[in-house]
Amino acid sequence: PHEKVLDDISHRRYNPLNGSWLLVSPHRTKRPWQGQQEAPSKNQLPEYDPKCYLCPGNQRAQGDANPQYQNTFAFVNDYSAVKEEQQDYSPDPKTEDVASLLLQAQPVTGRCYVLTFSPKHDTTLADMRAQEILPVIETWTRIYASHLSSSHPLKTEAVRAVQDIPANADGEVDPPKHQLRYMQIFENKGAAMGCSNPHPHCQIWTTSTLPEEPGKELIQMAKYKQEHDGRHLLGDYVKLEVEKKERVVWQNDSFLVVCPWWAIWPFEVIVIAKRHVRALVDLTDDERLQFAEAIQEVTRRYDNLFETNFPYSSGIHQAPLDCTEDEAKASWFHMHFYPPLLRSATVRKFLVGYELMAEPQRDITPEQAAAKLRDCGGELYRKSL
Amino acid sequence: PHEKVLDDISHRRYNPLNGSWLLVSPHRTKRPWQGQQEAPSKNQLPEYDPKCYLCPGNQRAQGDANPQYQNTFAFVNDYSAVKEEQQDYSPDPKTEDVASLLLQAQPVTGRCYVLTFSPKHDTTLADMRAQEILPVIETWTRIYASHLSSSHPLKTEAVRAVQDIPANADGEVDPPKHQLRYMQIFENKGAAMGCSNPHPHCQIWTTSTLPEEPGKELIQMAKYKQEHDGRHLLGDYVKLEVEKKERVVWQNDSFLVVCPWWAIWPFEVIVIAKRHVRALVDLTDDERLQFAEAIQEVTRRYDNLFETNFPYSSGIHQAPLDCTEDEAKASWFHMHFYPPLLRSATVRKFLVGYELMAEPQRDITPEQAAAKLRDCGGELYRKSL
Ligand SMILES: O=P(O)(O)O[C@H]1O[C@H](CO)[C@@H](O)[C@H](O)[C@H]1O
Ligand SMILES: O=P(O)(O)O[C@H]1O[C@H](CO)[C@@H](O)[C@H](O)[C@H]1O
Repeated sequence: PHEKVLDDISHRRYNPLNGSWLLVSPHRTKRPWQGQQEAPSKNQLPEYDPKCYLCPGNQRAQGDANPQYQNTFAFVNDYSAVKEEQQDYSPDPKTEDVASLLLQAQPVTGRCYVLTFSPKHDTTLADMRAQEILPVIETWTRIYASHLSSSHPLKTEAVRAVQDIPANADGEVDPPKHQLRYMQIFENKGAAMGCSNPHPHCQIWTTSTLPEEPGKELIQMAKYKQEHDGRHLLGDYVKLEVEKKERVVWQNDSFLVVCPWWAIWPFEVIVIAKRHVRALVDLTDDERLQFAEAIQEVTRRYDNLFETNFPYSSGIHQAPLDCTEDEAKASWFHMHFYPPLLRSATVRKFLVGYELMAEPQRDITPEQAAAKLRDCGGELYRKSL
Repeated sequence: PHEKVLDDISHRRYNPLNGSWLLVSPHRTKRPWQGQQEAPSKNQLPEYDPKCYLCPGNQRAQGDANPQYQNTFAFVNDYSAVKEEQQDYSPDPKTEDVASLLLQAQPVTGRCYVLTFSPKHDTTLADMRAQEILPVIETWTRIYASHLSSSHPLKTEAVRAVQDIPANADGEVDPPKHQLRYMQIFENKGAAMGCSNPHPHCQIWTTSTLPEEPGKELIQMAKYKQEHDGRHLLGDYVKLEVEKKERVVWQNDSFLVVCPWWAIWPFEVIVIAKRHVRALVDLTDDERLQFAEAIQEVTRRYDNLFETNFPYSSGIHQAPLDCTEDEAKASWFHMHFYPPLLRSATVRKFLVGYELMAEPQRDITPEQAAAKLRDCGGELYRKSL
């Protein structure tokens, strides 16, 4: 186990995955809270909401109507952050001119999707069985596969995965017009995490650039591999945590759920593939179901912890859409969950002044958080109400 | 001016100060907002609140009573994130063992202060005149000076500054027991930024470690200086922005207020010293007043923009408390303001899923934000109500 002295003293921990430090102050939870309270989540949603732009059959903002879909439904975001076609822009060639050093810009193109998890307006991943989450993972896999570059190191796996997975007309998307570099799948759940519609859904933003976070992780993972005889950072980490146990929340044969040593958010977890999976298309049928199980376990435990619809942002990191052999080899499939609640359904951790200006700071240790999440694995609290 | 094409296309901008990129999607503000609304700030505070732990004369959580202070009042936070004395912890010497690579920790000691800006419970920096903000800057300067290491390159300046500034018993603090490395001065204003008490105050966290953000900036500034014949990154940046004008919000002889090229938050600004000021103790009497003026201009314009008590987190970056000659030389005094509001007093920008998992994303351009802030420099809206 970790050294017990760390439960009582302020210390910094290192995140080897992105190369930065954070401050841990375990004694700080004793502080009384007089600040903002989150609104408790209203649990009174209808199964179908005629005003929701994600419910089957409804009209969307820019006029299109949704199909009567059965599982998932994917469409291009009506207010995308990036677009496939836009006016050309090529920055001036880099000179030693001060403006070219200090006012640097790059054009970004891409495509942003919204993907619903279910036709039911009032459900969440925590309410769905692993079997019901499976179509979501299958759709992610097909969408990822359809965006891979033709010379991608995972092309064979992509072809196989697409053959294995039954096509779902509502989850199909057109291939991109221009090859893109990265696909970020993420979910914002709950008003506290900026979600503006409770209908269960995620977003998928694909861009011509490799974004900062997966970019940093890729560099760190490649460096570790090179410095340690080809061993993988997350592969070594999985083995270590399985052995140490104290940060493990749950596991099955294929995935480990752990509050990482370097967690910033109070109940942050990371879901890590146990074997070297580079991207969604590497997963077998059985592994996709096991991944669905892991997502079910995380989201149900979150809701059980404070008996509320637990807000979070989650996101998947995997091999880029367009990548070198080395980048694909360095990639190790994982999913982050960043939930803001700290002490109850209404008291969150604010990552503000010190965190933004100096360094992220957390109040309870990841070991304490993991112990609490291990303890709330029972049936979803709403079921027994 | 910047290339106008950037007003209409998605692009990334580079932040040379911390070495990272962000995504700019200017067209995205057209999106309707159906998500969480911030509670409008209640403007009905009493000048003295008997229940406030920061008002003069009142009792604090752990029993101490506040003096009847006139301007500022500094005390050690009753719930500090770091402490001066704690159990010893020395991580095992670094081996090639997987645990020593992936589970790294460092002890952190230090002292956290709370500093009130005024005895009046119902005031804010935006309501105060520059002359009234001056004692805050003087107290910051004295506290910074009293924490400098004995061999610090700015020791002479610190001695001079302390002689120049009238002592204010309520703003005095004891010198630290052990030499510390960095002092982070920051303010969280408003419930949206995790502030739990509206009484105007900031916090000062001093630590034995150099935190991530000022650490990254110091490296970037030192690198720029070395690569560009001893010129300073922020010195060059100030000159460039004064010339370009389009991102300038306000300036006086000593300080420039600008929405930086690389701003993440919708109305983010940075206040930069025009000459090479390394830390608070470098400021002359007149410059301290000019700095107070700059803070007044930023906070009043913020409140005027949406006619509300504008929430933000702000923080000062300057030379470390314990530092080499080179680090002091590379440091360039500046203050960041990170405000979350985007479109009105109740609609904020959420930096969530994509921002946390992939890359920060903003909706309006810094040039558009600067134009709006330039336009609301009149009297504080509350005065004319
Ligand atoms: O110390 P305060 O004001 O109670 O706390 C606030 O600021 C701190 C420093 O940014 C954060 O760590 C806390 O999450 C926030 O609520
Ligand atoms: O696209 P949405 O869900 O309306 O928007 C939400 O997620 C985006 C991606 O994280 C953020 O940029 C927005 O600030 C947030 O409100």
